[in-house]
Amino acid sequence: MLIECIPNVSEGRRSEVVAAIADAIRAVPGVRLLDVSSDPSHNRSVFTLVGDAAGVEAAVLALFERALATIDLRTHSGEHPRLGAVDVVPFVPIEGVTMADCVALAKRVGAAVAERFRLPVYLYEEAATNPARRNLEDIRRGEFEGLAAKMAAPEWAPDFGPGAPHPTAGATVIGARMPLIAYNINLATNRLEVAKKIAAAIRHSSGGFRFVKAAGFMLEDRGIAQVSMNLTNYEKTPIFRVFEAVKREAARHGVQVLESEIVGLIPAAALHAAAEYYLQIEGFRADQVLENKLRTST
Amino acid sequence: MLIECIPNVSEGRRSEVVAAIADAIRAVPGVRLLDVSSDPSHNRSVFTLVGDAAGVEAAVLALFERALATIDLRTHSGEHPRLGAVDVVPFVPIEGVTMADCVALAKRVGAAVAERFRLPVYLYEEAATNPARRNLEDIRRGEFEGLAAKMAAPEWAPDFGPGAPHPTAGATVIGARMPLIAYNINLATNRLEVAKKIAAAIRHSSGGFRFVKAAGFMLEDRGIAQVSMNLTNYEKTPIFRVFEAVKREAARHGVQVLESEIVGLIPAAALHAAAEYYLQIEGFRADQVLENKLRTST
Repeated sequence: MLIECIPNVSEGRRSEVVAAIADAIRAVPGVRLLDVSSDPSHNRSVFTLVGDAAGVEAAVLALFERALATIDLRTHSGEHPRLGAVDVVPFVPIEGVTMADCVALAKRVGAAVAERFRLPVYLYEEAATNPARRNLEDIRRGEFEGLAAKMAAPEWAPDFGPGAPHPTAGATVIGARMPLIAYNINLATNRLEVAKKIAAAIRHSSGGFRFVKAAGFMLEDRGIAQVSMNLTNYEKTPIFRVFEAVKREAARHGVQVLESEIVGLIPAAALHAAAEYYLQIEGFRADQVLENKLRTST
Repeated sequence: MLIECIPNVSEGRRSEVVAAIADAIRAVPGVRLLDVSSDPSHNRSVFTLVGDAAGVEAAVLALFERALATIDLRTHSGEHPRLGAVDVVPFVPIEGVTMADCVALAKRVGAAVAERFRLPVYLYEEAATNPARRNLEDIRRGEFEGLAAKMAAPEWAPDFGPGAPHPTAGATVIGARMPLIAYNINLATNRLEVAKKIAAAIRHSSGGFRFVKAAGFMLEDRGIAQVSMNLTNYEKTPIFRVFEAVKREAARHGVQVLESEIVGLIPAAALHAAAEYYLQIEGFRADQVLENKLRTST
């Protein structure tokens, strides 16, 4: 069983604090810390770790322990919006584990964190207890500075923990979601308005695909326009369908797709689904992938 | 380092002999036996095993030991052509190993087998020492029964071992090759001649792609024609290029592709290459696949 967890912590400047948190995670058996990225201007660090449910739970509790001891949001500043010292903790199903398992884990960890640290916890995305709490942006609106006033309203009572902010750590958002795919399509044009029109056509917020966030940009150094996207559920809104829609919309403006790019990581299943789609492969099973077969046999 | 080895043994009826060979392979440390398939009418068994070079070498020697002790080709009959008790032993590079490594391994194992069992060994495919020995079919022509006469000709002197057949075990063909992909494309037509024409257009033997073997068949139960293929080097003749060529040739006859199918295993890289091609992904690296990243981090 493999669960990915990507805690976002409100500290990106004091490297010794970030290193101490990383050490606390590494000390937990059954967990691997894959990546730590700190952004000083955001004053925020993103930890990527994987393990089984018990390992990931223990690592997250260790992270909270260390972060809450050293981060004080009353003196924190940075470009990135934040609600808590540990701002957001998503659990992502990777292998041999369902979304329901990750939702259950988010609730278990949320309850534990609330009790142990007297910290308000909101559940988001797939773990949300009501639709107004699915989107992280809605929960985080007002940030740490506006949190006490926000929590005074009954509809913002937390899912776990006290009804008022933790004095130094604010509140935390914990949940479960699918892996994100950061996907860009570069157009063979320098017309930014074409990229913007395509982004508007395909993104959920303006009537497009349910699990696409998109915006149009200029790549100034190359003189080409880009449709930049986040695919938030590649099973329900697959990458090939988005690519074909962008190609079709571009053609509407007499523009061709120059290339696309995957930024960061992509689950193998998303690539396999594209191969199956274009090659019209019927009846394909994941255990037909040689490497999967090698891994599952013992 | 991961090498696949698929020894073909001339025994598919006496299950106790096959089981004893499988046990001998399983007893070797560092090797996993993934599959054993026996065909009584072919009177032949195919073993699929993986491991590092030392493990695979030890397992193959153990297999020879057991097979030669119990198989006598003088009394062997079956539909499948065969030259030896252990008929053919290909080594296939899977992970962290090059084709050159597998060629070196084939030569080392060939020399060891020849010396230990007084058995003539021919090197084939990528390990072949001359072009006339690349194709297994050319080496095997005449079979066990014609082997003594064949070996009398100087051009059929073996690469290792004695200049005459082993009395009960004949000779063995050892070599290195890329993973095979068995790939079929089903056509939305009942016209067999269209499948046959497409197969002729795309296969190497009649002027098509270098690493494609193909034939046209009827799937009688479904009333549709099929182009049935073996892709013998998916890096140099990729699956997407073959698929597009078949689609184009089919259109020439007013026929559409109904679907395709992967029979058995396919390397993940072959699927990823198809996704990259159709999605026009630039600059993609294998370590961007989430599962690969999870595996390489420790």
